[in-house]
Amino acid sequence: MKYPQALEDLINSFESLPSIGRKSAERLALYVYNNMSLEQTENFSKNLIQTKEKIKQCQICHNLSENDICDICSNDERDKSKILVVETIKDLIVIESVGEYDGLYHVLDGSINFAKGIGIEDINIASLLRRAEDENVKEIILATNATLEGETTARYIKTMLEDIDVNITRIAHGLPVGGDISYADEMTVLKSLEGRQKY
Amino acid sequence: MKYPQALEDLINSFESLPSIGRKSAERLALYVYNNMSLEQTENFSKNLIQTKEKIKQCQICHNLSENDICDICSNDERDKSKILVVETIKDLIVIESVGEYDGLYHVLDGSINFAKGIGIEDINIASLLRRAEDENVKEIILATNATLEGETTARYIKTMLEDIDVNITRIAHGLPVGGDISYADEMTVLKSLEGRQKY
Repeated sequence: MKYPQALEDLINSFESLPSIGRKSAERLALYVYNNMSLEQTENFSKNLIQTKEKIKQCQICHNLSENDICDICSNDERDKSKILVVETIKDLIVIESVGEYDGLYHVLDGSINFAKGIGIEDINIASLLRRAEDENVKEIILATNATLEGETTARYIKTMLEDIDVNITRIAHGLPVGGDISYADEMTVLKSLEGRQKY
Repeated sequence: MKYPQALEDLINSFESLPSIGRKSAERLALYVYNNMSLEQTENFSKNLIQTKEKIKQCQICHNLSENDICDICSNDERDKSKILVVETIKDLIVIESVGEYDGLYHVLDGSINFAKGIGIEDINIASLLRRAEDENVKEIILATNATLEGETTARYIKTMLEDIDVNITRIAHGLPVGGDISYADEMTVLKSLEGRQKY
């Protein structure tokens, strides 16, 4: 015995999401049926499609955007002499929310993890090197996570940039070691930005 | 700083679901963008709408169905002399999955809870009384939860049915007291069905 097919289909869709099991998926699907208005449901439905259709990666920094160039890269008031390197767009969002940093970003979309077969060519490092060669760029701030993978990635980038005339800094370890930037509170992020040192 | 609008909209849709906070909603929306195929996303989107458009309550037992009368009520092989009363469709699904019960159901869609202002008229009791008056109905099995609300509801139904010539039984308390039927394992449900006694 299963739920009626249309409901069973929605349960399966929810269950295909990470860390949502069968019981949670049933609860969410029944919530949609019982508690969401038709308008809310239509919006949810439309937002799923629009995320796939409208969102793309910025051609410069790999941030997500509805345009070819993201709002940050296309903002003339941002300081284009600094590039802050993060592993994920979530990290970028957290750092932006502090409101302190006024430079540009570079989203690696991951970190080097040899155990998982994620190498240098699997993340956005080549495009970072090209950007670093621009003479207007004076500082590369490495804000990868304070994990084995994040540190490996930071060291690798530092090595690759050795022959380029640019300052390389690393955000301070105000962040708990082994922790994820995207879960840090704003003050911790602020302190780690202020305490950045030559790497 | 927020995510691009289309992604922000999807995050808000996920966040409007129960027990999904901002961080989880971000993770789910990014999963849709990064990991779901366009086809999977289109299916998810369609399934949301179809749940609202196709699913309705069975006019007899209030089970959910894509038809006016659900598969169970319209199945001639079911024993129409028994009606098993549950609080929710989730409970019905669990009992059906055991494969032992061959009668009909009645879904109350809740339980009496005076503290929350949920009274007799707010759940499907009136329609149960009408069904119980059918002379073909010999047994009403009360399978409301073993909670204060479930017990209150069971006692109330028993009182209302006093003058009707029908056996009223209650599933056995093989279920842990205070527990939810929808989270019970199948053997526990089976035992509680077998051990039902005159109420």
